[in-house]
Amino acid sequence: MKKLINDPKDVVTESVEGFVSAHADIVRASTDPLFVVRADAPSAKVGIISGGGSGHEPLHGGFVGFGMLDAAVPGAVFTSPTPDPIVAATAAVNGGRGVLHIVKNYTGDVLNFETAAELAAADGIEVRSIIVNDDVAVQDSLYTAGRRGVAGTVLVEKIAGAAAQRGDSLGQVAAVAEKVIGQVRSMGVALTPCVVPHAGEPSFALDDDEIEIGIGIHGEPGREKIKLEPADAIVDRLLGPILDDIPFESGDEALLLVNGMGGTPQIELYIVYRRAAQVLAERGIEITRSLVGNVTTSLEMQGMSLSVLKLDDELTALWDAPVQTAALRWGR
Amino acid sequence: MKKLINDPKDVVTESVEGFVSAHADIVRASTDPLFVVRADAPSAKVGIISGGGSGHEPLHGGFVGFGMLDAAVPGAVFTSPTPDPIVAATAAVNGGRGVLHIVKNYTGDVLNFETAAELAAADGIEVRSIIVNDDVAVQDSLYTAGRRGVAGTVLVEKIAGAAAQRGDSLGQVAAVAEKVIGQVRSMGVALTPCVVPHAGEPSFALDDDEIEIGIGIHGEPGREKIKLEPADAIVDRLLGPILDDIPFESGDEALLLVNGMGGTPQIELYIVYRRAAQVLAERGIEITRSLVGNVTTSLEMQGMSLSVLKLDDELTALWDAPVQTAALRWGR
Repeated sequence: MKKLINDPKDVVTESVEGFVSAHADIVRASTDPLFVVRADAPSAKVGIISGGGSGHEPLHGGFVGFGMLDAAVPGAVFTSPTPDPIVAATAAVNGGRGVLHIVKNYTGDVLNFETAAELAAADGIEVRSIIVNDDVAVQDSLYTAGRRGVAGTVLVEKIAGAAAQRGDSLGQVAAVAEKVIGQVRSMGVALTPCVVPHAGEPSFALDDDEIEIGIGIHGEPGREKIKLEPADAIVDRLLGPILDDIPFESGDEALLLVNGMGGTPQIELYIVYRRAAQVLAERGIEITRSLVGNVTTSLEMQGMSLSVLKLDDELTALWDAPVQTAALRWGR
Repeated sequence: MKKLINDPKDVVTESVEGFVSAHADIVRASTDPLFVVRADAPSAKVGIISGGGSGHEPLHGGFVGFGMLDAAVPGAVFTSPTPDPIVAATAAVNGGRGVLHIVKNYTGDVLNFETAAELAAADGIEVRSIIVNDDVAVQDSLYTAGRRGVAGTVLVEKIAGAAAQRGDSLGQVAAVAEKVIGQVRSMGVALTPCVVPHAGEPSFALDDDEIEIGIGIHGEPGREKIKLEPADAIVDRLLGPILDDIPFESGDEALLLVNGMGGTPQIELYIVYRRAAQVLAERGIEITRSLVGNVTTSLEMQGMSLSVLKLDDELTALWDAPVQTAALRWGR
């Protein structure tokens, strides 16, 4: 295992320490229990938090800031956070208008956020939870009942965050988040496995000429292992199931996200984008917004995922709203 | 070789095609000869271009846009562009106030930009060139006479770009770029090699427990191969030569750049940032600005480089100025 780390048991705490040090204008950390929170929290708006295992950076801490999340709760690498820090983060961002929990559909996350929501409610905080399940690759899998929540989560966080920032109520923010979940689908591919620091060994094996289609964000198995193909053919394999699952009509507008899994050079992500844009054009779908980069990773895994979100005027306006986080920012 | 590509000979053109398609609001491409240029070029300000071998993305195309570069000229992977596209890009961004060439100190780049500058001058365009040589690792090396130009180039591009955007003259923009070059130093480490698509094999070899200190951005040799160490010890090895080479005094302000080489998880970059911040604090240097991420990469190489720029009020103001590029953006 070759990593830029010190003791494997300190990976998350040291990384969070560096993160809040580098972005002190945007975030601060609570260290016990551990979570990352907006420097100016709480504010008089609906609070939004997310969280999950570490190793998917910039998800979620990189998306804490103006116009997006109010707090992020990191677990150990690829391990859900326990309820305690989720409860504490919920309290820290509660400005009196309630708190939305954005949860990726992995069993551990779902259970721990559920417990946390009950505990926070017992403390008098109004909590709503939404479950992101954008991955069309598999129905039920190693760590999930139902579809997994993957990179589409970033789109939910951005759009719900914009709704909260403009002053929407908890019910309204939850509703727009659910709308995004209803209209976004994703699927990914792995070229290489990744190594969890405290494990020290690759989480799965792929031959030199083999790739895994439909991978989850922890390297958990997908649909099938196949021989390496040209990028265009791989894109076609992913986009088919995605587009078949969204009720697109010719003339519809969409956001295309090409997400790197952490170890994929940017030059390859844009080759992928090129083909994906061709396929959408062939279907009569207009890409009016896009995002290309490492937004939901699996440590150093080589691979990528595609997400397509069907847009309308409301979602587009919320997507375009100002955002100021460590990982995503535009005009404020 | 496992890559998300089609034919290796099409990697750069297909990637540029995807890039300008994804960021059509910011950039467009010339395809023959190949370069990326601001969608609104030329404008009535000093033009700034850079370029070099591909494989270092987002350098340079990702930094084309408002407040930074006007054009970027990509060569083949790890190969300098020829003079022709540089001349064409120079003409495309010339708004009548002259054009600055920002050149990394690699022999091929220096020669081709020099020829291009002469040709552009013969066409009546006023051109100034500056050579970035921020890498303290080695004096003369495989592809360079003198010190190499590495990730500090991004800081030169941002600050010179801001100077041009506010209306500075060519001489003024060149002067502030030279000032940055005089005050920035960098050094990197590789944990793994990378594979150039048309070569198909790793460019160098490292044992399972071995890292290369002082690596260039093409995987060319650095100072020494050593056994893998904890992240903190590696940071100390890089920062020593960097800080010894800048005339810092206690109380000085600095920008710290932690640059990923392409395949390093973000969680590790922040562990590196944490230690680097500690070391600077011990020396009495205050980090007032920072940047953490993949800004000057070597394809999928795992590793990172550190850059430290000594700041003053002028450089800080230019760093903070609005920027709107594919890879770097803040409030405009």
